[in-house]
Amino acid sequence: MDDIEIDEVETPELEDPVLIEGLPGVGHVGKLAAEHLLEECESTLVRRVYATEFPPQVTVDDEGVSELTCAEFHAVRTNGVDLLVLTGDHQAATNAGHYRLTDAFLDVAESFGVERAFALGGVPTGELVEEYSVLAAVSDGGMREELEAVGVEFRSDEPAGGIVGVSGLVLGLGGRRGLSAACLMGETSGYLVDPKSARAVLEVLEEHLGFEVDFESLEERAEEMEEVTGKIQEMQEGPSMGDDELRYIG
Amino acid sequence: MDDIEIDEVETPELEDPVLIEGLPGVGHVGKLAAEHLLEECESTLVRRVYATEFPPQVTVDDEGVSELTCAEFHAVRTNGVDLLVLTGDHQAATNAGHYRLTDAFLDVAESFGVERAFALGGVPTGELVEEYSVLAAVSDGGMREELEAVGVEFRSDEPAGGIVGVSGLVLGLGGRRGLSAACLMGETSGYLVDPKSARAVLEVLEEHLGFEVDFESLEERAEEMEEVTGKIQEMQEGPSMGDDELRYIG
Amino acid sequence: MDDIEIDEVETPELEDPVLIEGLPGVGHVGKLAAEHLLEECESTLVRRVYATEFPPQVTVDDEGVSELTCAEFHAVRTNGVDLLVLTGDHQAATNAGHYRLTDAFLDVAESFGVERAFALGGVPTGELVEEYSVLAAVSDGGMREELEAVGVEFRSDEPAGGIVGVSGLVLGLGGRRGLSAACLMGETSGYLVDPKSARAVLEVLEEHLGFEVDFESLEERAEEMEEVTGKIQEMQEGPSMGDDELRYIG
Amino acid sequence: MDDIEIDEVETPELEDPVLIEGLPGVGHVGKLAAEHLLEECESTLVRRVYATEFPPQVTVDDEGVSELTCAEFHAVRTNGVDLLVLTGDHQAATNAGHYRLTDAFLDVAESFGVERAFALGGVPTGELVEEYSVLAAVSDGGMREELEAVGVEFRSDEPAGGIVGVSGLVLGLGGRRGLSAACLMGETSGYLVDPKSARAVLEVLEEHLGFEVDFESLEERAEEMEEVTGKIQEMQEGPSMGDDELRYIG
Repeated sequence: MDDIEIDEVETPELEDPVLIEGLPGVGHVGKLAAEHLLEECESTLVRRVYATEFPPQVTVDDEGVSELTCAEFHAVRTNGVDLLVLTGDHQAATNAGHYRLTDAFLDVAESFGVERAFALGGVPTGELVEEYSVLAAVSDGGMREELEAVGVEFRSDEPAGGIVGVSGLVLGLGGRRGLSAACLMGETSGYLVDPKSARAVLEVLEEHLGFEVDFESLEERAEEMEEVTGKIQEMQEGPSMGDDELRYIG
Repeated sequence: MDDIEIDEVETPELEDPVLIEGLPGVGHVGKLAAEHLLEECESTLVRRVYATEFPPQVTVDDEGVSELTCAEFHAVRTNGVDLLVLTGDHQAATNAGHYRLTDAFLDVAESFGVERAFALGGVPTGELVEEYSVLAAVSDGGMREELEAVGVEFRSDEPAGGIVGVSGLVLGLGGRRGLSAACLMGETSGYLVDPKSARAVLEVLEEHLGFEVDFESLEERAEEMEEVTGKIQEMQEGPSMGDDELRYIG
Repeated sequence: MDDIEIDEVETPELEDPVLIEGLPGVGHVGKLAAEHLLEECESTLVRRVYATEFPPQVTVDDEGVSELTCAEFHAVRTNGVDLLVLTGDHQAATNAGHYRLTDAFLDVAESFGVERAFALGGVPTGELVEEYSVLAAVSDGGMREELEAVGVEFRSDEPAGGIVGVSGLVLGLGGRRGLSAACLMGETSGYLVDPKSARAVLEVLEEHLGFEVDFESLEERAEEMEEVTGKIQEMQEGPSMGDDELRYIG
Repeated sequence: MDDIEIDEVETPELEDPVLIEGLPGVGHVGKLAAEHLLEECESTLVRRVYATEFPPQVTVDDEGVSELTCAEFHAVRTNGVDLLVLTGDHQAATNAGHYRLTDAFLDVAESFGVERAFALGGVPTGELVEEYSVLAAVSDGGMREELEAVGVEFRSDEPAGGIVGVSGLVLGLGGRRGLSAACLMGETSGYLVDPKSARAVLEVLEEHLGFEVDFESLEERAEEMEEVTGKIQEMQEGPSMGDDELRYIG
């Protein structure tokens, strides 16, 4: 196997497709959002990307069949725009690996005629979130106005520390290739997988790109999540333990 | 030395040989099983594989003679099928190293005409095992039926986390090359080297591939192992210590 | 992106330019000093250096626009000599990466006709510094005399452990290329970013190379720093806590 | 700089030279022994080996002049045989780096006509040593007899874990190139730099290769070492502290 190997599964014609990157990150926001698009819309697997940078392992599906670690591109036809959606379970292991993988991803995107890219992720707030703002960074200042028009916030002090990994490089390397790239980050606690944050990010995309997607399954996941966070809050604030209980535990 | 160097020791003609991979892993199940085949059957060293990925060291044998770290292929003629058995004491050190080493191993296997491969290993249960089931994963769903026919189990929730290292890549990369590859994993505690688990895996292979091998030496090792586990259990469950003994130790 | 990519932004003619290296290190002394030169003198961005060795990330400026990790060269015209100033926020990640990056930096320097180089840094004393000496090491013993003439100290037991990273390699690799290279290290506690140490180093450069630069902004930063260190000293030496206070905390 | 760069300083004609490897290891035994040969015999620097595998740093000598990390070969004319002595302060950083560096070292050795090699090191006993045995491992069983004839011991259970690093690879890679290679290991506690162990190893070399070297300076270092170990033993065995002293320290 070469250092990076790309299987060409299908090559449909896409119309002015937009790259959507949803690899794992904070709160798995980007991953949830991207995978939701695959579930809700008409989607076709077009490319598999294998890399020696990925963990040397296979996952095993419910039928006992192995799958070598890879990232996947799906062509997604929404009721508005065409999307090229990148998903996977792993990022690269080394600095150089991140650059080379992202270059390979952008090569695939450009081969489909992509000129615009959105990296989806989360920005951790450190505490449970009530109102889900979506923050952004762009490769080109000219993109800012139309994103603010759909409710995205640009805060000069966030994200502190910049944007790391494939999402950051979609901006950095994408920008150097002349793509218009933006990173949309839903606020999230950072402690949990966050379907509400994923939804907030998708709503921005819907409005900005012009398409609609159903949110019922994400809503269900959000309700499960609320039960869990509710229990956590109870445990933290619940009736205090008396002295004899403390002695019992000690 | 090149990054990977292969010494061609001998090149016998083998008939439809099956690759058996037994590098170190959980409970050393695969290693024990593979080495048992080398001891019990007529076996010939055919290839040595050196790699800059391996630890930079030599082992020293009882005569004081050094041996550079390597993996070995033996041609093994059982009373049924011909096997190509891969053994060694180390795996690779980096992600890319695992991929490149396994590619080299599969190149050797294909040069002998191998079309079927079995990666042998253990799946840790976390506690001492009474009944030794053998679980499996396959590169191709079509292989499942004949393996279930010889008592192998496919459990949809195991192995959790997939299969890591050379065994996983024998499935992943082997599958991509069109080999029929399976990973057989004997249940084992994960705490000890487990000859009983190795035997369970070999019994599946015997039945599936059609050969027989004597188990006396593995049985002896199993008896030694039972003495050790017996003592561990005694220590864990033995007469409880009274308060004054606790104070003494404290 | 290649392993190292250099954007040629501008290529002005410089007269016998001197390389000034100010990447991050102890007390950020070199970084502060180099950035001060960029602020106070007429400076032009000439080169950006991207590398797969750098962290795979973008920083986001106040306008929300992303910038891929890079090092920068500025041509700086002081009222005396021409300087080629190297700044950045990161060093390489691996041993080999340090060597390759520094080679790339020296290639850029030589392309501008650089024959002399100064790596700027700090040497940690472990305690707050009263009098800011500047120590040095040189690639060639012949350089020692003129540096001592401007107040630089050569102490046979410092820096203990040598000089690590790009600064060390500017000396090591620069020397092998026939450049006259020196490392100037301002004494600093090692605990804080130190504008006074940066100033001491710049004063040596001014005197040795023959130029002048205003220090007002560094002075302001030094005053802010003195407030902070003053508070730290108060906390360390302040009124001792009595026994009952100790019991309260315990 | 290439990944490995070798400066050819001088190339004297040597008669059947023997490679002596003394890079840092357990108790610095090999390093001390090799450096002692350089001090006591007529020695000439012949090669410097730079590598991107080495730490990216320079050491600074007493005159303030920098030296880039390297390993050195000296041609040493004893009153018997000619030696090619390899010394340095660092080993490689990665697995592959160790293999490539040792290959480069053996290339240099073969260019001088070396056919025999001795890697010098220590084997840790875990406690202060009274009688300094020298253990060995060889690349070829035929070498054993003549080494035992000069008092070297081959113990089947030592060194446990084999021989790691350049010394191990001198055996492993040297053996594969057809060199006669041996590793001589002086017993040492492993806690201290050990001149007595270095002397024991050199005495074996003297006898086996047929030369003599003065040991006065090593003897002086050994006496300094005995003072230190004597004090350590006193502290460990010295008068026990009474209860009130314990309370004072607590």
